[in-house]
Amino acid sequence: MEIAIQKARKMGASIVGVRNSHHFGMAGYYALQAVNNKMIGIVMTNSEALVAYTHALGRSLGTNPIAVGFPAKKPPPILFDAAMSVVPIGKIEVYAKEGKKIPLGWAMDSDGKLLDNPSEVLARKGAILPLGGLGEEMGGHKGAGLSLIVDLLCGVLTGANWGKSVKHTINKEPANVGHFMLAIDVKNFMPINQLLDNVEKLKDYIKGLPRISQEKDIWVPGEKAWLTMKTRKRIGIPIHKNILKELEDEGKRVGVAFKVKVLSSI
Amino acid sequence: MEIAIQKARKMGASIVGVRNSHHFGMAGYYALQAVNNKMIGIVMTNSEALVAYTHALGRSLGTNPIAVGFPAKKPPPILFDAAMSVVPIGKIEVYAKEGKKIPLGWAMDSDGKLLDNPSEVLARKGAILPLGGLGEEMGGHKGAGLSLIVDLLCGVLTGANWGKSVKHTINKEPANVGHFMLAIDVKNFMPINQLLDNVEKLKDYIKGLPRISQEKDIWVPGEKAWLTMKTRKRIGIPIHKNILKELEDEGKRVGVAFKVKVLSSI
Repeated sequence: MEIAIQKARKMGASIVGVRNSHHFGMAGYYALQAVNNKMIGIVMTNSEALVAYTHALGRSLGTNPIAVGFPAKKPPPILFDAAMSVVPIGKIEVYAKEGKKIPLGWAMDSDGKLLDNPSEVLARKGAILPLGGLGEEMGGHKGAGLSLIVDLLCGVLTGANWGKSVKHTINKEPANVGHFMLAIDVKNFMPINQLLDNVEKLKDYIKGLPRISQEKDIWVPGEKAWLTMKTRKRIGIPIHKNILKELEDEGKRVGVAFKVKVLSSI
Repeated sequence: MEIAIQKARKMGASIVGVRNSHHFGMAGYYALQAVNNKMIGIVMTNSEALVAYTHALGRSLGTNPIAVGFPAKKPPPILFDAAMSVVPIGKIEVYAKEGKKIPLGWAMDSDGKLLDNPSEVLARKGAILPLGGLGEEMGGHKGAGLSLIVDLLCGVLTGANWGKSVKHTINKEPANVGHFMLAIDVKNFMPINQLLDNVEKLKDYIKGLPRISQEKDIWVPGEKAWLTMKTRKRIGIPIHKNILKELEDEGKRVGVAFKVKVLSSI
């Protein structure tokens, strides 16, 4: 993304493809690099195949997130960052650790039936469904198509792996994950201050929409995570006791004491 | 898109923003212009506000389609072209004309309740739901976020209208719809023949996936529409009798005889 930003400053916009990579953390991190340079950042990555393709059985494509960052006059910037599946695998892991059932519509078993047991999904018996869900009625083919496009831009275009050949990063063989990074220098389209003003107007427009329920806030993409970040920096990170135990066990296994200051426990 | 293709040939990739535009037809048409030049084309447009934003009432954003075209060695090329709503407005119009109910999950009324009557949606009482549906459980915030990103790239970045200010094209005042067109010249990433071979491998991979049901084919994005185009060029275009009547009435209204050769009728 640093290269893309440098080139965009000279040329207006720049695309960098990455191959021979691994899990690169959160896609939004790189989009924010562009945002911090008053640019628009668009970042995609492919990933281990966990997601079903429409009308197909098994795990065919990665969760393949797309992140888009837009600079704003006032914090937070707009940061969209989402897997092209109904949910990312991490969310199913959290449900499994907390012993909760997942909603029907997130994943299916090896016969194409909807699953509510997160452990079955994790035990490689199931596949996560694409955004839009099973079949075509609610647009599942759109989520599957977006995921395929991410694989084309990150895997096929860069010479990285794609589809089932993308490896899980803890394997010994190289993962060869691919990424796509696009930086757009705003000033080639309009003066940066004009754009920042307009982004602020769009944020106000979204926040001012009438709500369905007074119990559900309306969020601009990235706003909720930005507030969470601010809160956690101040008062700490909530963690489920099962995950805490897992971290302690892992610490013991590798001989590293795991220390945490527990502020409160329920 | 012609400008984007010319510039991409010189510079590797190019983005063109369009403002003061109208409904530009199908987004995929412009992506195919890039594909016909052995380039990748990414095209977005904003549109009249018809779609609800997550947790908000009413029509806040357009159906805001994204089209992505990838050249292939053998026809058809890969062409993803989809509204970022569960369905495009045209699909709801077809259900209304055919007198059918729409599935619950496509649209909601002015109080946020799911609608099954397509005429109520068209009568401006309802809003189409974003890809992923109502609320956040099935990823509705992802579809709403993607739609917002399309509005940012097509409306805010270009200086066109966005949100509710995008006008319906039959109004007298200018629509000021905005578009975003990106052309990527493949040869800057890898030799074009290598890319074409790899796209063909990806198409084979998708077509070879095990099916959930033998009654449901697995489609590469753009394949179904390409086959439909081929069939219709050969044997004609099926049209519902209500739509045929509407075309005839419209012809009478403006004093233009509407002639159609009806091959068969059910």
